Amino acid sequence: MAGKKVLIVYAHQEPQSFNGSLKKVAVEILSKQGCTVTVSDLYAMGFEPRATRNDITGALSHPEVFSYGVEVYEAYKKRSLTSDIVDEQKKVQEADLVIFQFPLYWFSVPAILKGWMDRVLCQGFAFDLPGFYDAGFLKGKLALLSLTTGGPAEMYTRTGVSGDFKYFLWPLQHGTLHFCGFKVLAPQISFAPETASEDERKKMLASWTQRLESIWKEVPIPCTAPWYFGQ
Amino acid sequence: MAGKKVLIVYAHQEPQSFNGSLKKVAVEILSKQGCTVTVSDLYAMGFEPRATRNDITGALSHPEVFSYGVEVYEAYKKRSLTSDIVDEQKKVQEADLVIFQFPLYWFSVPAILKGWMDRVLCQGFAFDLPGFYDAGFLKGKLALLSLTTGGPAEMYTRTGVSGDFKYFLWPLQHGTLHFCGFKVLAPQISFAPETASEDERKKMLASWTQRLESIWKEVPIPCTAPWYFGQ
Repeated sequence: MAGKKVLIVYAHQEPQSFNGSLKKVAVEILSKQGCTVTVSDLYAMGFEPRATRNDITGALSHPEVFSYGVEVYEAYKKRSLTSDIVDEQKKVQEADLVIFQFPLYWFSVPAILKGWMDRVLCQGFAFDLPGFYDAGFLKGKLALLSLTTGGPAEMYTRTGVSGDFKYFLWPLQHGTLHFCGFKVLAPQISFAPETASEDERKKMLASWTQRLESIWKEVPIPCTAPWYFGQ
Repeated sequence: MAGKKVLIVYAHQEPQSFNGSLKKVAVEILSKQGCTVTVSDLYAMGFEPRATRNDITGALSHPEVFSYGVEVYEAYKKRSLTSDIVDEQKKVQEADLVIFQFPLYWFSVPAILKGWMDRVLCQGFAFDLPGFYDAGFLKGKLALLSLTTGGPAEMYTRTGVSGDFKYFLWPLQHGTLHFCGFKVLAPQISFAPETASEDERKKMLASWTQRLESIWKEVPIPCTAPWYFGQ
């Protein structure tokens, strides 16, 4: 939709991968709609995943015992966070929609993307205490997880060996995105592209393309335990 | 228990933190029992969390399109993984029990520890396809998550804002540890030590100490969806 801003946080090492294709398609379709699309290509940026004292420029508030959360909260307020965090926070602040494009690593995001979440979504910027879930500071923004799996869809069903895929989405969609106030769109899951046929891969890409055409009309999913766990 | 080997994978920046105290107590109690205790202090080691081409020494099998999973599997078989991964795999291979000591970051492990899981527990070493869950290659070993939270226990109940703490354990205990064949002991959760009183912190440390005294007699938890989700 013309005028909308989209941030794609992309975590794959190889541009020619299926993740790379999904990212490319999203950039193309959304740009054609007149959206401004920004990509944070984490591996290409050599993005730092480790949460350390280096994230605070200048003196610490409590140098005797280092608490990452306390120091980063203070540094956010004093504008003394390191520049790679500040750059990403600006991109998030400007975005109407944040798409996370990644391969599933151990039922979650790859460490480089976990580090983006750990460091960028800090207290003061993304939430406060109180000031989370529906009162999270990123309210009014949309987020969407677009991920690929190693295993086939049958593994990720309620009775499959890995359980319903919704189960592993809970820490990401509820515990992280919803906590920060995002409205979460349904996940886009491309199952097992590495073992799929060329035809199946084309179908998965086409399905993502088609979905992006009307993405701005979508209604967010309910980020509640019953939706995840069917209780 | 005399003769047992324990690996503690520890992810906190500050030795004087509550996580540091929990780690210290575990080293003391288990050493007193006659166990050999090894600590991987990830921040102190500057452990690399990013899964990249650098993890494979020498030539790639498919240099034209880089697939991390494929290349690391090949490199494991050819003994050409980078030394920091090999060192950690040796520690895991020797351990009877692996304890993960960390503060909860976004309903999960900090990125530095996620990177340890992504890189160390690779195909060929920790599992194969097939060769996972009860057939995972680390079967016969025990694993235990000892974590601290920011929020109080009330937040992590079935009707609390963050849902039952079991929900966020699923990707770690089932999707990662059980997938690799580990038997998983009940998690040790120390709620909100940063806002607790000195007396409450002492009680949490004492509870961990007491538990460690009889840790070898514990029965693993059932790593199944009903245990997590009560279905």
